[in-house]
Amino acid sequence: MSPRASDAPQRVIDAAAQMLARVGLNATSIREVTKLADAPLGSTYHHFPGGKQELLAKATTLAGDKVEALLLELLREGAVPGLERFLEMWRERLLRSQFRAGCPVLAAAVEEPVEAVASQPRAAAAEVFARWQGHLAQAFIGDGHAPEQAAGLASLVIASVEGAVAMSRALQDIAPFDQVAAQLLKAARAG
Amino acid sequence: MSPRASDAPQRVIDAAAQMLARVGLNATSIREVTKLADAPLGSTYHHFPGGKQELLAKATTLAGDKVEALLLELLREGAVPGLERFLEMWRERLLRSQFRAGCPVLAAAVEEPVEAVASQPRAAAAEVFARWQGHLAQAFIGDGHAPEQAAGLASLVIASVEGAVAMSRALQDIAPFDQVAAQLLKAARAG
Repeated sequence: MSPRASDAPQRVIDAAAQMLARVGLNATSIREVTKLADAPLGSTYHHFPGGKQELLAKATTLAGDKVEALLLELLREGAVPGLERFLEMWRERLLRSQFRAGCPVLAAAVEEPVEAVASQPRAAAAEVFARWQGHLAQAFIGDGHAPEQAAGLASLVIASVEGAVAMSRALQDIAPFDQVAAQLLKAARAG
Repeated sequence: MSPRASDAPQRVIDAAAQMLARVGLNATSIREVTKLADAPLGSTYHHFPGGKQELLAKATTLAGDKVEALLLELLREGAVPGLERFLEMWRERLLRSQFRAGCPVLAAAVEEPVEAVASQPRAAAAEVFARWQGHLAQAFIGDGHAPEQAAGLASLVIASVEGAVAMSRALQDIAPFDQVAAQLLKAARAG
């Protein structure tokens, strides 16, 4: 059964996000991403005339959008229960993937393109981080935290979840993630 | 003035760590690293017969050793003042590099080799994270924290400093790093 051609651009973006999270910005190629997405190469070049940097920036933005939508839904229950559910979901993802699941937004943030070009994926990652941070800060304000503390907690959540995922991937062990999750919930519950 | 040949392996390892932190595992090549180190290519192949994976694992370990030595020195003053100095040093590094400074250990942790080989750099990153975590936990125990809480705080410090560096690099702004640093010091000072 051949995948639908009209879905090809979306499949290519999803495949790009996966490959970005796994092998990084520089090792992700339009050719490999298109193959992974089972899409025609000509269609990828047609839909992403800006090439790899454009495609990876879109993949970063869309991966960020998905997490943003999830966060907004979970945070409706309140900052602490929402954070708790979010951490549980990341925990499951790490275990299910045998510690291969990673974050394409982090990958876009930490890797400079080898070609000396301005990194569009990095700029996309910056916007994504700022949006996540804003929603988390709002939720902490809703929970009664003062604005400055809420903003600080929000940045701590993003930074430490990204870092904890990286530590657990390196160690192939859920322990660092669990330790960080417990510390974050403690900080979020405190005044 | 030609650099000394006897220093070549050390210069190659340092250059590998720099390139790993900047462009990631897969985009780092033996050829480029050797050029950056101003070393002869034949000598690099001679000193690192295991090739790129071996070289990047050594670079990850040595970068980790340097941070470990620094941490041990700073933590002698106590966990909180030591952490404070460590955060100040990272802050300076980010600003001085115009947000290009990154961590080779994180890069080794989050990127899988495109060739389907076991990642020696990832294994090296795991050992480095475990050593940093152990020293920080000891320092927090010395400060009066219970062992479980000390271990949790230690993992939180590593995860969130790695994540905060990535956020500040993405946003080209010191604000996320400063917010995370303030939250970490608050958590470290609390009981």
